[in-house]
Amino acid sequence: MTTETTDTTDSTTLAGHSIVAGERLVGRSKGLTAIEATTGQPLEPTYTLVDEEQLGWATAAAEAAFETYRATSPEERAAFLDEVAAQIEADGEAIIARAVAESGLPTPRITGELARTTGQLRMFAGVVRLADHLEVRIDPAQPERTPLPRADIRQRQVPLGPVAVFGASNFPLAFSVAGGDTASALAAGCPVVVKAHNAHPGTSELVGAAVARAVAARGLHPGVFSLLYGSGTSIGQALVRDPRIKAVGFTGSRAGGLALAAAAAERREPIPVFAEMSSVNPVVVLPGSIADGRAEALAAAYVASLTLGSGQFCTNPGLAFVPEGPDGDAFVAAAGRAVAEATGQTMLTPGIAETFEQGTTALKAVDGVTIEAEGTAGDTDNAPAPLLASVTTSVLRDEATVAEEVFGPSGVIVRWADPAELAESLRALEGQLTVTVQAAESDHDAARTLLPLLETKAGRILFNGWPTGVEVGHAMVHGGPFPATSDSRTTSVGSLAIYRFQRPVAYQDVPADLLPEPTRDDNPWGLTQRVDGRLRLSQN
Amino acid sequence: MTTETTDTTDSTTLAGHSIVAGERLVGRSKGLTAIEATTGQPLEPTYTLVDEEQLGWATAAAEAAFETYRATSPEERAAFLDEVAAQIEADGEAIIARAVAESGLPTPRITGELARTTGQLRMFAGVVRLADHLEVRIDPAQPERTPLPRADIRQRQVPLGPVAVFGASNFPLAFSVAGGDTASALAAGCPVVVKAHNAHPGTSELVGAAVARAVAARGLHPGVFSLLYGSGTSIGQALVRDPRIKAVGFTGSRAGGLALAAAAAERREPIPVFAEMSSVNPVVVLPGSIADGRAEALAAAYVASLTLGSGQFCTNPGLAFVPEGPDGDAFVAAAGRAVAEATGQTMLTPGIAETFEQGTTALKAVDGVTIEAEGTAGDTDNAPAPLLASVTTSVLRDEATVAEEVFGPSGVIVRWADPAELAESLRALEGQLTVTVQAAESDHDAARTLLPLLETKAGRILFNGWPTGVEVGHAMVHGGPFPATSDSRTTSVGSLAIYRFQRPVAYQDVPADLLPEPTRDDNPWGLTQRVDGRLRLSQN
Repeated sequence: MTTETTDTTDSTTLAGHSIVAGERLVGRSKGLTAIEATTGQPLEPTYTLVDEEQLGWATAAAEAAFETYRATSPEERAAFLDEVAAQIEADGEAIIARAVAESGLPTPRITGELARTTGQLRMFAGVVRLADHLEVRIDPAQPERTPLPRADIRQRQVPLGPVAVFGASNFPLAFSVAGGDTASALAAGCPVVVKAHNAHPGTSELVGAAVARAVAARGLHPGVFSLLYGSGTSIGQALVRDPRIKAVGFTGSRAGGLALAAAAAERREPIPVFAEMSSVNPVVVLPGSIADGRAEALAAAYVASLTLGSGQFCTNPGLAFVPEGPDGDAFVAAAGRAVAEATGQTMLTPGIAETFEQGTTALKAVDGVTIEAEGTAGDTDNAPAPLLASVTTSVLRDEATVAEEVFGPSGVIVRWADPAELAESLRALEGQLTVTVQAAESDHDAARTLLPLLETKAGRILFNGWPTGVEVGHAMVHGGPFPATSDSRTTSVGSLAIYRFQRPVAYQDVPADLLPEPTRDDNPWGLTQRVDGRLRLSQN
Repeated sequence: MTTETTDTTDSTTLAGHSIVAGERLVGRSKGLTAIEATTGQPLEPTYTLVDEEQLGWATAAAEAAFETYRATSPEERAAFLDEVAAQIEADGEAIIARAVAESGLPTPRITGELARTTGQLRMFAGVVRLADHLEVRIDPAQPERTPLPRADIRQRQVPLGPVAVFGASNFPLAFSVAGGDTASALAAGCPVVVKAHNAHPGTSELVGAAVARAVAARGLHPGVFSLLYGSGTSIGQALVRDPRIKAVGFTGSRAGGLALAAAAAERREPIPVFAEMSSVNPVVVLPGSIADGRAEALAAAYVASLTLGSGQFCTNPGLAFVPEGPDGDAFVAAAGRAVAEATGQTMLTPGIAETFEQGTTALKAVDGVTIEAEGTAGDTDNAPAPLLASVTTSVLRDEATVAEEVFGPSGVIVRWADPAELAESLRALEGQLTVTVQAAESDHDAARTLLPLLETKAGRILFNGWPTGVEVGHAMVHGGPFPATSDSRTTSVGSLAIYRFQRPVAYQDVPADLLPEPTRDDNPWGLTQRVDGRLRLSQN
């Protein structure tokens, strides 16, 4: 391997190569160049791409690193996560500049995203220090129990093993190389192999180098982290099929997520895939929220969320349920005016802009779809015009296209006549990341009736706000029933995400001097332990 | 549906029909008759079998029941679980007699299993009353935060929806109609549709009737529970494919589990399958444990575990790693004597006995397998002779058959020369439910080195005992990496099993009067809540 490596990771000069176990690895083919989103011009350097054998070096290093990395203490692991955040901040200016160029997203947005990324790493450092995620359970022996004595049984969570992470195009920092999937996997004790997203290779390299420096600075096995550049789907598929990989984190398209899930299911040893894929994030407008002249302001706020960041959020509110009648008409008219006045913003890549055009073209071709408004295309490349359409509930029911995600600033308003029709329409929807309810006090009875249904449809329910901000915290759920994700029992944002990458192990009559620290009676790490089913709080 | 139903569930007289939403449903085909295990004679009655349309009535009823059942309070749900246990006990004598006849398992064993089953239901009642499994998280609003205020975000777990349960042949009570999968799904708030195991239809009906009576007694929607008799795999597959089913619990063969997992993955909406499938439960004998003349007693205990219940336990210790040298030789010789003296016991079904014979025949045919001893076949039907074989580590490495589960009293001893060879052999094994270590104080250093490896291989690690007893408690893990189970992140025994059937939902800025009880600031149920990442203990 060494003959194919070049310099180390101590520079913000882009090398254009993968990073495998702390060293730059020259891929055996060449061909990936980033595109400046606003101009369409290529950005230096051209990236070398690994082949399957080279990919195997990264997963082998991850496997080799697992033995020592999983054994790190909470403080060692937390200090490493803090160090990753610090190393990213140290190169913050270069990272922000490159991410703005590659994504076309505005500097304030990327600056905020960098803070979110480092904040997320530090949140997981705090989670690891508290170590409640180890979920320690102790059922002490009952030697006198009849008819049979009870053995001493203890339980803790252990990490799954090396995790493959696939970054998203739309969050080049927070859902990419050192994003939520990587942070939660590292927090759980799993080495990470990232497949760089081809839309932001330079950003990926800068962040990957920062992570690799943190690994070295904390004296960890270098295989704890690798970053691979590879051609399209083939290296991604090979990574998921690699027997040393034990779980997968993915954010992206439904087709992409399903392909990885299928590859994982076909393995000799199937592994879990946590794919966050597709959602139209319904907004339910209840009558009180637009009564008394409030329709116009609410419609303006809706369109602001719909077109924010060119609509390129997993949580973009693509479907709004608006009541029939004058207030609803006012809402639709005002939303139409706002969309008509909106100008297209640069999308992340030419491919994404093209897919948006295809999606809106398909939507316009559906019988029964009324085009309420279309904005103006932007001056820069790949800045298509926002679109607002409307349909009846029966069109929504009969035409699957209407409820499918069009990634970008495109919204469909569904007009509903009565609460039963609304409920029936919501019941027929696929799973979602979010459902938003716009409700005045007078709508609470109706909302109370709807809530149990909404709980079966989405991972997050929000009132009188917009879904496009996803808070990184302990209570957040960024997940939901299929096809929002491939596994509704978890989240890819927030501290609960660490649970994806661990599994329980029970220890029965294991001698005290052999028990893992978390499960010991003397509790050397001061953890929360559940003893005979009752929690005893951490002293941390 | 009513024209096809007969009487209700108020009798221990077997009707020979499915139970759908509290009523006996006459299946449209006929043909399943239980076999008395010890005699091979048919047992009355012959069971009618449902077709796919009739199956749909059960899942539709489960879906209809979900809305109210998921909304039950902890006390309502716990009281129902207690009632199920009481109803089973009320028919305890009839259930035990029928289970003994259908399974061939001895009365004391079945009597113990009934107590385990009711104990398990009551344990889940306790879990539901404490309600820590709701995992409430509250991140209060921070309106003053800069640059952006933080919304109020709360989280709890909600049930997935109707669950399909497939019972196991080898535990006609504890892993069947009202076994661990059913108990944990009902505890989570999920209606259950059980596909009766065809080896114990009468036991299933008696227990199913008891569950149905408990549903009625607690005034719950009758669709909370149904029990279906169906032909072989086709109704099982149809049940997993039914769009109203949202998760599957299964205990049985690897082929059976994989078939259900494949069906679930191919659905329009894929669903989780929790299949407990296949394990040879390695026993690692370290030198100190057989030094100083202890080999003989340990070998006798090993064979007792190997042949217990005719070896028909998921946790049967089918593979033992014994050191080379005189102490190891003594262990093997003593184990051989014990197996040679052992008499076959009736297996659960003729089919299982036949599969056992096929497995041992295949094992004997492997090059390098030494037959150490064979016992005597039993007097009754289907009571094949126990078998003990031995191999070197290289045979284990080269011949996959050696490490495959032979369900029944068949064991393979692997002789190892040094710790590195032992570790290499263990590393090459597939995932397991359990790994047992036999170790004296002098073996602790060696055991300490092995433990991290064992943690990657099994869901439960036990010392100086035998894996064939599975305690139902809070710390138990009955699970493990593939192919022990289809999802290593959970367990099918113990209170953690409830987590399989729920998912998190976040509530953002939901008005206080609309928040679900568990997430409210006034905490009307007195639950444990995690506020800003820190636990606040339950007042229950």
